[in-house]
Amino acid sequence: MTTRTEHDLLGDKEVPAAAYWGVHTERARENFPITGTPVSAYPHLVEALASVKEAAARTNAELGLLDADVAEAIGTACQEIRAGALHDQFVVDVIQGGAGTSTNMNANEVIANRALELLGHARGDYHRVHPNEQVNLSQSTNDAYPTAVNVATIIAVRDLSAAMTGLQRAFAAKAVEFQDVLKMGRTQLQDAVPMTLGQEFGTYAVMLGEDRQRLDEAVTLLHEINLGATAIGTGLNAPPGYAETACRHLVEITGLPLTTASDLVEATQDCGAFVHLSGVLKRIAVKLSKTCNDLRLLSSGPRAGLNEIDLPAVQAGSSIMPGKINPVIPEVVNQVAFEVVGNDVTISMAAESGQLQLNAFEPIILHALSESVTHLTAACRVLAERCVSGITAHPDITRAYVENSIGLVTALNPAIGYAKATEIAREALATGRGVADLVRERGLVPADRLAELLRPENLAHPRERS
Amino acid sequence: MTTRTEHDLLGDKEVPAAAYWGVHTERARENFPITGTPVSAYPHLVEALASVKEAAARTNAELGLLDADVAEAIGTACQEIRAGALHDQFVVDVIQGGAGTSTNMNANEVIANRALELLGHARGDYHRVHPNEQVNLSQSTNDAYPTAVNVATIIAVRDLSAAMTGLQRAFAAKAVEFQDVLKMGRTQLQDAVPMTLGQEFGTYAVMLGEDRQRLDEAVTLLHEINLGATAIGTGLNAPPGYAETACRHLVEITGLPLTTASDLVEATQDCGAFVHLSGVLKRIAVKLSKTCNDLRLLSSGPRAGLNEIDLPAVQAGSSIMPGKINPVIPEVVNQVAFEVVGNDVTISMAAESGQLQLNAFEPIILHALSESVTHLTAACRVLAERCVSGITAHPDITRAYVENSIGLVTALNPAIGYAKATEIAREALATGRGVADLVRERGLVPADRLAELLRPENLAHPRERS
Amino acid sequence: MTTRTEHDLLGDKEVPAAAYWGVHTERARENFPITGTPVSAYPHLVEALASVKEAAARTNAELGLLDADVAEAIGTACQEIRAGALHDQFVVDVIQGGAGTSTNMNANEVIANRALELLGHARGDYHRVHPNEQVNLSQSTNDAYPTAVNVATIIAVRDLSAAMTGLQRAFAAKAVEFQDVLKMGRTQLQDAVPMTLGQEFGTYAVMLGEDRQRLDEAVTLLHEINLGATAIGTGLNAPPGYAETACRHLVEITGLPLTTASDLVEATQDCGAFVHLSGVLKRIAVKLSKTCNDLRLLSSGPRAGLNEIDLPAVQAGSSIMPGKINPVIPEVVNQVAFEVVGNDVTISMAAESGQLQLNAFEPIILHALSESVTHLTAACRVLAERCVSGITAHPDITRAYVENSIGLVTALNPAIGYAKATEIAREALATGRGVADLVRERGLVPADRLAELLRPENLAHPRERS
Amino acid sequence: MTTRTEHDLLGDKEVPAAAYWGVHTERARENFPITGTPVSAYPHLVEALASVKEAAARTNAELGLLDADVAEAIGTACQEIRAGALHDQFVVDVIQGGAGTSTNMNANEVIANRALELLGHARGDYHRVHPNEQVNLSQSTNDAYPTAVNVATIIAVRDLSAAMTGLQRAFAAKAVEFQDVLKMGRTQLQDAVPMTLGQEFGTYAVMLGEDRQRLDEAVTLLHEINLGATAIGTGLNAPPGYAETACRHLVEITGLPLTTASDLVEATQDCGAFVHLSGVLKRIAVKLSKTCNDLRLLSSGPRAGLNEIDLPAVQAGSSIMPGKINPVIPEVVNQVAFEVVGNDVTISMAAESGQLQLNAFEPIILHALSESVTHLTAACRVLAERCVSGITAHPDITRAYVENSIGLVTALNPAIGYAKATEIAREALATGRGVADLVRERGLVPADRLAELLRPENLAHPRERS
Repeated sequence: MTTRTEHDLLGDKEVPAAAYWGVHTERARENFPITGTPVSAYPHLVEALASVKEAAARTNAELGLLDADVAEAIGTACQEIRAGALHDQFVVDVIQGGAGTSTNMNANEVIANRALELLGHARGDYHRVHPNEQVNLSQSTNDAYPTAVNVATIIAVRDLSAAMTGLQRAFAAKAVEFQDVLKMGRTQLQDAVPMTLGQEFGTYAVMLGEDRQRLDEAVTLLHEINLGATAIGTGLNAPPGYAETACRHLVEITGLPLTTASDLVEATQDCGAFVHLSGVLKRIAVKLSKTCNDLRLLSSGPRAGLNEIDLPAVQAGSSIMPGKINPVIPEVVNQVAFEVVGNDVTISMAAESGQLQLNAFEPIILHALSESVTHLTAACRVLAERCVSGITAHPDITRAYVENSIGLVTALNPAIGYAKATEIAREALATGRGVADLVRERGLVPADRLAELLRPENLAHPRERS
Repeated sequence: MTTRTEHDLLGDKEVPAAAYWGVHTERARENFPITGTPVSAYPHLVEALASVKEAAARTNAELGLLDADVAEAIGTACQEIRAGALHDQFVVDVIQGGAGTSTNMNANEVIANRALELLGHARGDYHRVHPNEQVNLSQSTNDAYPTAVNVATIIAVRDLSAAMTGLQRAFAAKAVEFQDVLKMGRTQLQDAVPMTLGQEFGTYAVMLGEDRQRLDEAVTLLHEINLGATAIGTGLNAPPGYAETACRHLVEITGLPLTTASDLVEATQDCGAFVHLSGVLKRIAVKLSKTCNDLRLLSSGPRAGLNEIDLPAVQAGSSIMPGKINPVIPEVVNQVAFEVVGNDVTISMAAESGQLQLNAFEPIILHALSESVTHLTAACRVLAERCVSGITAHPDITRAYVENSIGLVTALNPAIGYAKATEIAREALATGRGVADLVRERGLVPADRLAELLRPENLAHPRERS
Repeated sequence: MTTRTEHDLLGDKEVPAAAYWGVHTERARENFPITGTPVSAYPHLVEALASVKEAAARTNAELGLLDADVAEAIGTACQEIRAGALHDQFVVDVIQGGAGTSTNMNANEVIANRALELLGHARGDYHRVHPNEQVNLSQSTNDAYPTAVNVATIIAVRDLSAAMTGLQRAFAAKAVEFQDVLKMGRTQLQDAVPMTLGQEFGTYAVMLGEDRQRLDEAVTLLHEINLGATAIGTGLNAPPGYAETACRHLVEITGLPLTTASDLVEATQDCGAFVHLSGVLKRIAVKLSKTCNDLRLLSSGPRAGLNEIDLPAVQAGSSIMPGKINPVIPEVVNQVAFEVVGNDVTISMAAESGQLQLNAFEPIILHALSESVTHLTAACRVLAERCVSGITAHPDITRAYVENSIGLVTALNPAIGYAKATEIAREALATGRGVADLVRERGLVPADRLAELLRPENLAHPRERS
Repeated sequence: MTTRTEHDLLGDKEVPAAAYWGVHTERARENFPITGTPVSAYPHLVEALASVKEAAARTNAELGLLDADVAEAIGTACQEIRAGALHDQFVVDVIQGGAGTSTNMNANEVIANRALELLGHARGDYHRVHPNEQVNLSQSTNDAYPTAVNVATIIAVRDLSAAMTGLQRAFAAKAVEFQDVLKMGRTQLQDAVPMTLGQEFGTYAVMLGEDRQRLDEAVTLLHEINLGATAIGTGLNAPPGYAETACRHLVEITGLPLTTASDLVEATQDCGAFVHLSGVLKRIAVKLSKTCNDLRLLSSGPRAGLNEIDLPAVQAGSSIMPGKINPVIPEVVNQVAFEVVGNDVTISMAAESGQLQLNAFEPIILHALSESVTHLTAACRVLAERCVSGITAHPDITRAYVENSIGLVTALNPAIGYAKATEIAREALATGRGVADLVRERGLVPADRLAELLRPENLAHPRERS
């Protein structure tokens, strides 16, 4: 492999001649052989870094710190990256020491070298466009990187929000479809009182709607950026007006409603918004998992289970048991949920471990957050498309459960009292007989009143009766 | 011990004659010998249960289901409990099976027996006031208990919010006091660039303010209650209009802006608001812990540490090392924080494990949440009063760090460039000499410009310079 | 309240005249108003502290550092504490700053004052027996406290181990009782292949046995103590031979096979054994929870669930639904399990946060560990006695599931192949007919061979057939 | 893309003509678009699957169930895979529903098609070698997959164990190198008593040694396999003697000391060994993180920190602060540790969620465990090679801390008592004077005794003095 020689604080270093990255990236590659997954695996972050660097270049030019042609070359390089180019040049490992410095330097080097190329210079010939002196001008990793993380996360969360809306709609459609399917409600896995399958599915839609609202609220915390803070938030080395101007340009470039944090020292060290967002993702995960547990339970069987619904068959379930169909889609969603809860602990520990003016552990926060958001997005989509939308009910089975149920006795409380109702329940359980039969036999309630009390609509929707 | 005999589904059972609780409570005591901590350890919950039961009694009377004198006796019993009476009668263990049924029945029984007493009847003589048929009328554990948990939590969180405000003020006062104390900022524990100790302490105040805002937002989710849902949210056995009327009464009794959830089936099974609140508590904990880590680090010494600040001495630090003073207050706050993060995992698992129409694990959610809120409240108070408000600075030491620092070279970047500045830094490190000296010696910057660049105000507040 | 005046580094301080504790304890009470739970809530720890202090006094006397009468008075005080006296004098909060210093000083003060009393002196008159100079002689909190924590934990874990054995036996007895109850095995909640209920319950017994073995192994790590390490492990201020002699005395006093750690500097800062033990407790918790989930699932019903087993009724299940019986015992065990998993995270964070020569966060580690051990002990006992030992089966129901099952087709794989078997399964599912019928109808297997393949014993115990 | 048509329970499906995988894999690819990371990312697992399948083929041939040429072709295919071939054909996503069925079927299909090729047949022409009927013969996913996971994990853990040994040696070498570097020990970040830097580094070596022992113990739990259990542990469809024979072949193929679990029903549903191993990995992570925190703290500076040691510079630390060197290697290790703690929570939740005869969530357990093991391995290596082995000390600085320290007064306790020593400490702190000076001035200890007490060797190694 042909190489070129670059130089830094530690001395000379060979870099592949064809690489757009430089000496800082090359050292980081050697220092962090941890996961094998490069930063290019986060396209949203790569694009967000390009947005930040372009905003900085425009600002530096506007404030008279950067020649117009250099700023333009940097801007063009950044636009190309946002259009999908050069992503493969973001080669540092996603888990890295140094608060994101290596990722930031990787971006600085790739953009500098592409800008040099656009200006007719060779890679590594940094006299005209230097990664630190021009591309990183008026910035530090400590403001450029978190700002890019914010931008990338906002965009990723939009996808999740949309996927949740899709899943919510799938459940809502089933709620309508199943609105007349009478079934037993269950508490603590014991037969409780009647309801409809439509109410049950409607619940999942409502939950998702609430969760999405929380998500949309949480992400607004990321609209506040610290660009202009430089190293520790005091803005050392950024010219007056830099923060505000750079934010304005970044708003133009990204179309996002970003604002500059009012206290940049605080904003530079605080990971609160990430912890908060992760907490909301965990909430979503926990409830999605509960929902999938329900789906698996309701579809248990086909003969020795509840068998109230059928999930669509998407693959053969067993390598040994012929004809077995497993609830693999809910199962994969459960697993993503467990991962998200674990990631939340990782993020909490990383946030807790920040010291003084900076949190050095933002790379793992970004990594865990990014994993949680993208896997949840995939999970919601796959659950909506490959499972919920194809669910069918067994109304005959669910109605039989109701008719056979001891829980019906609860509806008779107002008529016969808790104590008498308890006796009936006990006898029904002991003898295997039906509640209505026993009540009728004992003449506890007139027949027409009994029929009224046990009418399906009254059982499932008592609040709506006149 | 003299006893009286009570009866339930399982048969007869002796209960202490003097007890206000009854057979259901007695069985639960035997069933759950887990922690030894009774529900009375949560006074907010006991009082909230009394509020719910009074609201229910008023509503039942208003809707014609309960005799006025019985409703009044129940109401009086509830008011007495809210005034502090009978708390010792709430004896079931805080960790219990059954979705809170035992706590709800404990409340029903205590209130019934006290109401009976008020009406001139003996304890256990439930013909007039029955725990289930009158006190629990139109309710289920599954709506009465979560509603009480919401009310109790809202009130506990108010205390936390106030304690956070107190701590925020303590930090803000120190930010003013230390506004002229120049010091080195540090990133990744390495000397970075100058700032003031006031900026550092101001950061903690700003963080707390943000966290408190998130807390105040999270608690509003608990304003939505499911009273009137009864067993599974369909409202079976509650008369028409019950939910709305009961909510109105509960608002009057508690003074809280409660509303009835729009989908009661969803509200009855959903623990999202608790998971959310716990996530916010975890955020607060994580950042409070980070802040305490900083305080411990800045006060490390007195001779072999950073020694920038002194925490007030509140107790002798060592049983063997004379004169040693330890940062025990921040240390206890750290430990509360670790507990809160653990509780958040507990709550997440409990929420995930809910099944179908109910989450049977609300008792542990309540327990963990209650622990997190009250311990954080105590931690914030003790940190404000016994630590932060008495912190003093060593301005001579912090200034010496700045003057001696290599990090000053960063301020010269705009004048001499990153590459030259790197050389100066390397030489300063190797020789132990000062940055200003080396720059002066090499004539890289005119003396007056150098003095200007290194002026403390410019270093710490560059954004404010003209 | 009458008081006496004591003195320390910070000046004079009033202490209740009747208190056996002194100035250090008094300050700690004020400093840590966190949980309201005093150290006396851990009787094992109080007794272990007394054991450590007695061992130290004996050693100091043997090495000529302490007068014989003082050593004897200290020893007597310690024996009284181990016999149950003075526990109420251990008043500092369980969550405290300072690596256990306040608990250690609380013990030093109580023992000193009781020894003074035995020697005919007044409380607080420390000339003869000083908490630091005599009771704490040759010790630091940093060796005395962790040693006591080890001793207390070893004893608490013995209780847990015994409770697990009891639970294991309860499951094993049911495994025998249910050995002929044929039932469907389920994987992924879908009908799989036949087995016996005895096999299912036997599994739980085997799991518990394995878990108990891991627990017994983990606790041996605590046999290694650091007594003699003093402040940081170098043994400064402890005379030559102290560590070994003190360990010998502690072995005599406690009867435990304790040994002195080979590297005391390491042993003084390392919390690895606690993290390890907590990890094993978490393992136990997780599997106990899974077992309880199974019990709840198998007993779901009574009409709209699997209804394969009945758990004993231990209390009425609902305040609104008459006759409802809930699986409250498994549910309380689930909740303990969630708590243990949360505690494990707390312990991990506390252990990770230790710095340099000491972990200042041992109090929360002790607290969380103690909670996990004692709650798991209670959970195992209650599960064995109030649930498992009373479980009954519904053999008619479980057999009907098998006979009706499509999963039977798996047993025909060797005879007709996976592909043909898949066809049969599909047809059975679509038509609602039985597998055996369809096979017979198609003449795929001779009748006698078919009967042999589907014999219950062969289905459930194919490995044992000849 | 040219395709071939395959068929399963759900109907016909096009598969890429060149693919070695088949219809089951193809459906799984569509069902699980979660992470984008295919199973081929776990080469140890791919190879372990090949080992299991070869062991099964040999056993089936030996027991007369499989033609010798087919068995041989299967064996050859498996050997090729173990030699590195066809890994790119393992394309299903690492997070998948279905308890590993898709991974197992992926293996069955790839091996079947390669075996067909070796026998001169076309891909997809399964008459001679069918993925289910031949490659999976006498197996289920539920025994083949967990057995492969065990084998893969054992091998991955060996790498970790070796990496830990390397790191332990690096610390031990530094312990020797720094054995005469006197320094202050610190507890609670406050100056405590003297020690040597060698003792400090020796501690890290000892800790790693203990942790590795625990790891080596934990992995032996995985030697117990459930091959022969088939679907639920009863061994249905596996011929008599299968389990034992297959285990014998697998031992021969892998060289690992595997044994068949004594209760296969238990072994098939139990994830205890994985939870246990993860708990040990978490212990390792937590302590490694603590060690890295120490390294970062001791190397803080260079001017405004403790500055006791220098970590080797491996890259420039800042994009804005010239000359800044950051502790990026310890920082990346911290982040891996946070990830491992999070993964442990994920694994706990997944294990807790297993139901009845199987845990459907083994894929996420494998994923999280594999991540923890491989990332910890990389972290240990990089920490040893790029950090610890290059650490240098500043003995002048560390000795000055000792000489200037108030903590020296502790060494005078035996000579002047805790109370007097406290006074000296207080005066030293207030006046800034040295402890020895003050003692000398007051004539509290004869000069030669004082010198002896304060001799560095005595301070750091008091236990070794005669």
